[in-house]
Amino acid sequence: MFTLLAKDGEARRGRLRLAHGVVETPCFMPVGTTAAVKALTPADLREAQTQIVLSNTYHLWLRPGLSAIEAAGGLHRFMSWDGPILTDSGGFQVFSLESRRTLDDDGVTFSSHLDGSKHRFTPEGVVDFQQRIGSDVAMVLDVCVKLPATREQLEEAVRLTTTWASRSAEAPQRDQTALFAIVQGGLDSGLRERSARELVELDFPGYAIGGLSVGETREEMYAAARHTADLLPAEKPRYLMGVGTVRDLIAAIDAGIDIFDSVYPTRCGRNGRAMTHNGELNIFNAAFVNDQTPLDAACDCSTCTGYSRAYLAHCFRSKEMLGPRLLSYHNVYFLNAMMRDARAAIESRTWVIFRGRAWSES
Amino acid sequence: MFTLLAKDGEARRGRLRLAHGVVETPCFMPVGTTAAVKALTPADLREAQTQIVLSNTYHLWLRPGLSAIEAAGGLHRFMSWDGPILTDSGGFQVFSLESRRTLDDDGVTFSSHLDGSKHRFTPEGVVDFQQRIGSDVAMVLDVCVKLPATREQLEEAVRLTTTWASRSAEAPQRDQTALFAIVQGGLDSGLRERSARELVELDFPGYAIGGLSVGETREEMYAAARHTADLLPAEKPRYLMGVGTVRDLIAAIDAGIDIFDSVYPTRCGRNGRAMTHNGELNIFNAAFVNDQTPLDAACDCSTCTGYSRAYLAHCFRSKEMLGPRLLSYHNVYFLNAMMRDARAAIESRTWVIFRGRAWSES
Repeated sequence: MFTLLAKDGEARRGRLRLAHGVVETPCFMPVGTTAAVKALTPADLREAQTQIVLSNTYHLWLRPGLSAIEAAGGLHRFMSWDGPILTDSGGFQVFSLESRRTLDDDGVTFSSHLDGSKHRFTPEGVVDFQQRIGSDVAMVLDVCVKLPATREQLEEAVRLTTTWASRSAEAPQRDQTALFAIVQGGLDSGLRERSARELVELDFPGYAIGGLSVGETREEMYAAARHTADLLPAEKPRYLMGVGTVRDLIAAIDAGIDIFDSVYPTRCGRNGRAMTHNGELNIFNAAFVNDQTPLDAACDCSTCTGYSRAYLAHCFRSKEMLGPRLLSYHNVYFLNAMMRDARAAIESRTWVIFRGRAWSES
Repeated sequence: MFTLLAKDGEARRGRLRLAHGVVETPCFMPVGTTAAVKALTPADLREAQTQIVLSNTYHLWLRPGLSAIEAAGGLHRFMSWDGPILTDSGGFQVFSLESRRTLDDDGVTFSSHLDGSKHRFTPEGVVDFQQRIGSDVAMVLDVCVKLPATREQLEEAVRLTTTWASRSAEAPQRDQTALFAIVQGGLDSGLRERSARELVELDFPGYAIGGLSVGETREEMYAAARHTADLLPAEKPRYLMGVGTVRDLIAAIDAGIDIFDSVYPTRCGRNGRAMTHNGELNIFNAAFVNDQTPLDAACDCSTCTGYSRAYLAHCFRSKEMLGPRLLSYHNVYFLNAMMRDARAAIESRTWVIFRGRAWSES
């Protein structure tokens, strides 16, 4: 399923074959939590060179629900995206919706953020849900812990995550859905090692590094991600969850990680923040009101070739939803283009030069 | 500038040559009040077969302002739309922002709805503004009156509108900008006749019917529009301002009117209301949650070919801005397609059949 095509230092250039298509890695996944990438159509995503999108089990489970997605013929047809889809398991919501859930050895019960109704998530149920909706990559139900956390909390999260991963691996599988496990352990290198070792023994087709970007410093995150990546089998894809800034992505590729997701580019875009080859900019900055240049002169996306900063600033100031749409599009395009360039750099063994330039520009 | 190609009853098939392109009539203009058609890019508008968009002098004057638009090289370049643009004069805001303006014989002073600053609009100033930003069609400053109104109010509005139209006609003209006058007079047929006669004497290249859709019943509007259209020269284009429902558009084409604008399709689209060949529907209707059919099975737009009602309902319920975007697109496409079909019906002298079908479907 995964082929490692080239390496430059620890940076990897790979190819992941999934039921709905091939994903060239390193790769960034835009996030469509509720079966929609905010403001963007599947046609936009394709045009912006998106290879795979992420959606979320917890959110889809609550709305529109399994039967609605099955009635549509699966998630791909429901949202009109025919490329690969990875779905997260709901394990992140164990962290992000801490006040709305109770955890036990057998699973998690969520009280819906929409209407308070109770929903029971078990390892098997979550795998079954993701298979039924047709995910290309399903994630096991895990326990994501807010940082800082005690050793006991992290140890318990690792224990449950392994137990649940084992149950997930034993659940019925479908060819079209590859099941990835998620390494936990917080910033504790011993626990990361334990978690990785236990999950690697279960022989999943891919591994995610979870439990980061949840309260720790950037340096702590880099160190934990690099340490964990080293613990994972070279021949399998590695996915760092929830990372989407230029600096973080470059650091993670440099640590040998292949796949990433984050709401960062679309959330920034909606709020007027653009990622550029000269760092990030806030379109509400007064200087842009009369700036006839594009967002990013080095970008060839339709936002940058079609509109000036002055026009985009006008749209945001006028609360025209075209503003959020055009900046979201640019940011997704920008990260996809950066990944394409990263792949080329690794292939040509110029990764160190690329990394240095990307860092200096960010 | 305007060629009458065919007639069927009073319905007219025409061609309007403007600085930025040809407009085949009957024609509907989507509204981009602040230099942006809500949720839609110029590429979307083209794809949806839009020929000309409308923008608004009052709003552009306040934000981004003349110097910003001039710095961009004009309104077309500012908003990245290279087709024709018609700009309204601010006369409608005499009605819609009644509490924020004072009127005198020489013009109108608005207190900005954005920051309270004072802005003086005169007939000459408004023409100059529209010429400088590069409008293909500029509208004269007029006095639009809320209905019901007294005979005295209407008479005064007609008097000022004629005076200002005369001053506008005497102002310096530019080849690229055609100046249209606006007939007022409310529901008073005598005043409509006076207004039309006085403005026709001034020999403008086109005429609008203003002061309707401002509080009167639909039947009163139809009667006044038809009566006024009859008063206008056959060889010049006729524009009914602020009309955008299927029934109203069909009635107005039937009365011999050529051009229309309304926020209706985009406002409806943002709020979950879709125009279809089976009448309008509200996507929040519970029945659509599990409806796998397209919005309008008889529509070939990318919203109808790409998404189910169930998905669109999901987007609206999830507050995904993709919902407003996809419905706005469909509604604009729908009206443009209806206009294209109306043109074909007039050419083939099947207008009565077309009119009957459109009415029965609406």
